[in-house]
Amino acid sequence: MNDTSAPIGVFDSGLGGLTVLKEIITLMPAEHTVYFGDTGRTPYGSKSPETIIKYALQIARFLQSQHIKMLVIACNTASARAYKAVCDLMKIPVVEVITPGAQAAVQGTINRKIGVIGTRATIESDVYVNAIRHFAGPDMQIIQQACPLFVSLAEEGWWHHAVTRSIADVYLQALKQAQVDTLVLGCTHYPLLKDVIAQSAGSDVTLVDAAHRVSERVLDVLKTHRLMNQSDVQGHHVFYTSDSIEYFQKLGSLFMDRTIDTVERIDIEQY
Amino acid sequence: MNDTSAPIGVFDSGLGGLTVLKEIITLMPAEHTVYFGDTGRTPYGSKSPETIIKYALQIARFLQSQHIKMLVIACNTASARAYKAVCDLMKIPVVEVITPGAQAAVQGTINRKIGVIGTRATIESDVYVNAIRHFAGPDMQIIQQACPLFVSLAEEGWWHHAVTRSIADVYLQALKQAQVDTLVLGCTHYPLLKDVIAQSAGSDVTLVDAAHRVSERVLDVLKTHRLMNQSDVQGHHVFYTSDSIEYFQKLGSLFMDRTIDTVERIDIEQY
Repeated sequence: MNDTSAPIGVFDSGLGGLTVLKEIITLMPAEHTVYFGDTGRTPYGSKSPETIIKYALQIARFLQSQHIKMLVIACNTASARAYKAVCDLMKIPVVEVITPGAQAAVQGTINRKIGVIGTRATIESDVYVNAIRHFAGPDMQIIQQACPLFVSLAEEGWWHHAVTRSIADVYLQALKQAQVDTLVLGCTHYPLLKDVIAQSAGSDVTLVDAAHRVSERVLDVLKTHRLMNQSDVQGHHVFYTSDSIEYFQKLGSLFMDRTIDTVERIDIEQY
Repeated sequence: MNDTSAPIGVFDSGLGGLTVLKEIITLMPAEHTVYFGDTGRTPYGSKSPETIIKYALQIARFLQSQHIKMLVIACNTASARAYKAVCDLMKIPVVEVITPGAQAAVQGTINRKIGVIGTRATIESDVYVNAIRHFAGPDMQIIQQACPLFVSLAEEGWWHHAVTRSIADVYLQALKQAQVDTLVLGCTHYPLLKDVIAQSAGSDVTLVDAAHRVSERVLDVLKTHRLMNQSDVQGHHVFYTSDSIEYFQKLGSLFMDRTIDTVERIDIEQY
C-alpha cells in the first residue's frame, strides 16, 4: 500500500495520546489522522502484559479497517508491552513513543544521570532502560519511578493542585536524591502535570516531553517510505472512542487545546 | 431453579467487592461462592452508563453459565447504573449494594443530615439520594461528593498515607461544613481507606460501611426463596478475573484478609 492521501492512525489507552496527535498536526498540517482513545478500558498502566497486548491488537485491527498508511502507538504502556505484537500484525510502518524520548534524554543529560517516570507497566517493562542503554552504553545512570496516581490526577483535572504537588514530592524523592539532571515524562498524560512536576523536580532538572520528538519521527518515517501527503489543503481529523462521546469531546478539547467536534463511539471488543 | 447447593455469584469492577464477599462468607460459611473481578477493565467509576451496563451484562451472563442460585452486584457503580438491566436478564434473585447502605444511614442519623461519597458515576446517578428518600421522606438533608481519586489510592495501597489524608480533607470539606453526622461509604473500595476517612470526617461522624448490611440482605433473600445451603461443611470459593492472576491473588488476599489460592483468568468479552 502506498496511498499518500490515507490517514495516519494514532491510538492511546485514553486521552493522553492527544498530546502527541497535537504535535503531529502542527508539524504536518496536510496529513489526515484517525485517533482512537480506549476510554472504555482506560487506564492500561496497572494491567498485565497479556491484556495490554490483546487490547492493542484489537485497536490496530480497527485502525487497519480505516485504511491507515501508518500507525502511531501514542501510549507509553502500549508501546512498552505491545509494540512487537502490533508490528507483527501490521504491514505498514509503526512508530512507538519510547525511542524518541530515550534518545532526547541521552542527548540532553550532562551529568549522565537520567530519571524516568511512568505507569507501573511501563516501568516494570524496563523498556526505557533498554532504549537509553542502546543510545548511551552501560555507564549511564538510570533511575526509574512508577507514578500510578499521576494518570488519575491528570484525568481528575488536578493539574495545578497542591495535593498533586505533594504526591509529586513523594514520587520524585529518590530521583532528586540521585541528582538526575534529566527527567523523562514516560506517559502521554504527564505533560498535563508538567508545571507541578517541574516545580517538584527543581530548576536543575530538564523535563523530556517526547510528544514533539515523536512527531519528528513520524515525519522521518513518512519521508523514508514516500508516504507524505503533498496536498496544500489542511487534513481532516477523525476521532473514535470506546466510551462516552461527551466525555471525550469535553476533556479531549482541553488536551488538544482545540475543539473536537466529531467523535464516534465504536465497539472495540468486536475487533 | 431451586438448587440450594448452587453457589452465590458475586461481582465487582475489581477487588473492592471482596470486602462484601468476606462478610457473606463470615455470615453464611456453608455457602459456595463464585466471584468475578473485572480488573481488566477497572475502574468503572468514570465510565458511561452504557459501557457499565454492557460490562455488567457480560459478567452476569458469565456467572449464569456457572449455575449460580443468586447474584450479588458488589459494586456501587454497577448497582447504580446496571441493576435494572441485570434484573431483566436474570431469572434468579439479584442483590445490589445501594439499598442496604441507604437504609443503615437513615437508621443511624440523629440530626437528619447524611453525607454520601462514591465514584463520579455513582454520585451522578443520584441513586443514593433516591434510596435514602425512599426510606426517609423529603425532609432528610443529603449532601453528595464524588471522590474519583479514592479508588486509585486504595489500589495503590496508600491506605494510611498523609497524602490520602490531604485528599480526604479536600473531598470532605463541604460535607463537614454541612455538619452531616452520618457518612455513607458508597464504594466497595472505600472501607480500605476507612481510618483516614474517619480521621478527616471527625469523631462526630459515623461511617456507614454497607458490606455487612449487604450480607444480611443476602441471608434474608436466601431464606425467603428457600435457597439456603443446609450443609454443615464449609463452602468453597472460586475466583475469576479478567486480568493478571498474580495481581488478583496478591492484592485480593489483602482485601479478603485471607489467602486466595485458586484464581482463573477468563475472557469476559466473549460473554
